[in-house]
Amino acid sequence: MTHIALPDTVRIVDVGPRDGLQNEPKMLPTAQKIQLVQALCAAGVHEIEVTSFTHPRWIPNLADAEDVVRATRDMGFTSFALVPNRRGLDRALAAGVDGVTLVMSVTDGHNQANLNRSAADSLEELLTLHALAAQAGLKVRVSLSVVFGCPFAGAVSPDAVVQVIDRFVAAGARRIGLCDTIGVALPHQVHALSAQLMARHRDVEFELHLHDTRGMALANAFAGLLAGIKSFDAAIGGLGGCPYAPGATGNSASEDLNAMLTGMGIATGINQENLLQGAALLADWRGRPLESAAWRLATAHKTLCPKPKGNPA
Amino acid sequence: MTHIALPDTVRIVDVGPRDGLQNEPKMLPTAQKIQLVQALCAAGVHEIEVTSFTHPRWIPNLADAEDVVRATRDMGFTSFALVPNRRGLDRALAAGVDGVTLVMSVTDGHNQANLNRSAADSLEELLTLHALAAQAGLKVRVSLSVVFGCPFAGAVSPDAVVQVIDRFVAAGARRIGLCDTIGVALPHQVHALSAQLMARHRDVEFELHLHDTRGMALANAFAGLLAGIKSFDAAIGGLGGCPYAPGATGNSASEDLNAMLTGMGIATGINQENLLQGAALLADWRGRPLESAAWRLATAHKTLCPKPKGNPA
Repeated sequence: MTHIALPDTVRIVDVGPRDGLQNEPKMLPTAQKIQLVQALCAAGVHEIEVTSFTHPRWIPNLADAEDVVRATRDMGFTSFALVPNRRGLDRALAAGVDGVTLVMSVTDGHNQANLNRSAADSLEELLTLHALAAQAGLKVRVSLSVVFGCPFAGAVSPDAVVQVIDRFVAAGARRIGLCDTIGVALPHQVHALSAQLMARHRDVEFELHLHDTRGMALANAFAGLLAGIKSFDAAIGGLGGCPYAPGATGNSASEDLNAMLTGMGIATGINQENLLQGAALLADWRGRPLESAAWRLATAHKTLCPKPKGNPA
Repeated sequence: MTHIALPDTVRIVDVGPRDGLQNEPKMLPTAQKIQLVQALCAAGVHEIEVTSFTHPRWIPNLADAEDVVRATRDMGFTSFALVPNRRGLDRALAAGVDGVTLVMSVTDGHNQANLNRSAADSLEELLTLHALAAQAGLKVRVSLSVVFGCPFAGAVSPDAVVQVIDRFVAAGARRIGLCDTIGVALPHQVHALSAQLMARHRDVEFELHLHDTRGMALANAFAGLLAGIKSFDAAIGGLGGCPYAPGATGNSASEDLNAMLTGMGIATGINQENLLQGAALLADWRGRPLESAAWRLATAHKTLCPKPKGNPA
């Protein structure tokens, strides 16, 4: 290949306030969550997944979902909240979100562990939720977990993913996220699945939700770009990931993805310096380093290697 | 783009014993260096840059260059050593390396800081060294620093890189490394420069030497693969980088690159589990975590997320 084509603009949806904070060992206080969302909005992030309307028994860190939505809904960005069921949708509507993210896994094993029912049952429930949310005038994102690999099933066939997606598309879904939930995707795989799905459903916007567990989030994002993907989930600070993998990094970090995209001349609307102010809020509270390269670099030194010793190559 | 082509096989040259160890705050004892090289060789790394024949005043960590070369030269891999000048070449020859890496920067500012002379002066000296090394029957790699960006000059024009490379090619160089010395390269840039150079010099093997400073080493490697690059420098444990950037990660980690390549079905000849044994040697000695995602993951837990809480997506 002698030439590559990149899009002019790409959307980053920051899912940090939801996917990043839900697995932290302590709860970010509500006032600081609101500050974080404000910082992201001020940096130019146009879409933010601010919380999840899951029962607080399951995600105590996000027990303040209503408060966060209400305090941030007039800031000028498009707010999304994850909703796992009808009760969550009702709560989200009452709180006044702009959109909802509906999530299920494409494998029974992961869906059972995560949502306590079969993938088939989740599919039927989410199709109903999709219709209700659309009727209520909400934007709707469908997020499909473990499409690139599952901790229970191992490899996941593209056919299995296609089957689920066909059902959602037939029911009217036009924005579907492909989630590398456990960070096992490989660039050629991301490219192939993205290209296959985009060719199959040309009127659907496919999004990528990548994790940096194996350091491949940006490689996978680049592969997705080459396939034509123009929307990516990412989390400020690289927070998130699996609570059973304490050393593994989490979501693709917004600041790393933004650095790569804007560095390549792709407009995201996001100011990197301002974005790092959001990361600073998290770092102060967290008490341990954030997971992003951009944060490490920004805090390590302000200038690039003025005088290396030895022979760098 | 609906289809991508990847090579069947790719070479990883582990430069960890040289580029990784030279900037560590303490010296890895010679016996452990030899063990490290042995571990890399046993893992299937066919080419290893084992040391640098630079004056010990500049790189005290590698003051044992002769000992390392002599103790490892019959292990069955191809050994390289960096040589900065005629004296270094003579030492390398006497010690019995298989090949040498000749290094210079394509910008005056970085070359001056690093090698204490102009780029033009280094070029003339290296052309002489190249001829001498080739006459002596050594394999020769030319490594060009800061081709994707310089801490002093900022952006580096492809034309400036081409000019230097043309001189080396005219003098017989057939293996030329493009080094992202400070980790500022972007995937589209890596692709473009690699493709341009490969089209210009079809009989030259271009190699990529990437740093993970901004988390883009694997994205850049993937971009290089798409351009047709089939040889990559990497360092076990992700060691290396700039001594003035304590929080920044170093070289592209061999174990992360190997995971990506083999995961995509590309043969490297390197066994990942055995490679991590080399990383374990370093980790024990270093007393602080290695920089690679594969190492973090391997040491954090042995199974992937058996039962995540909440709603991962």
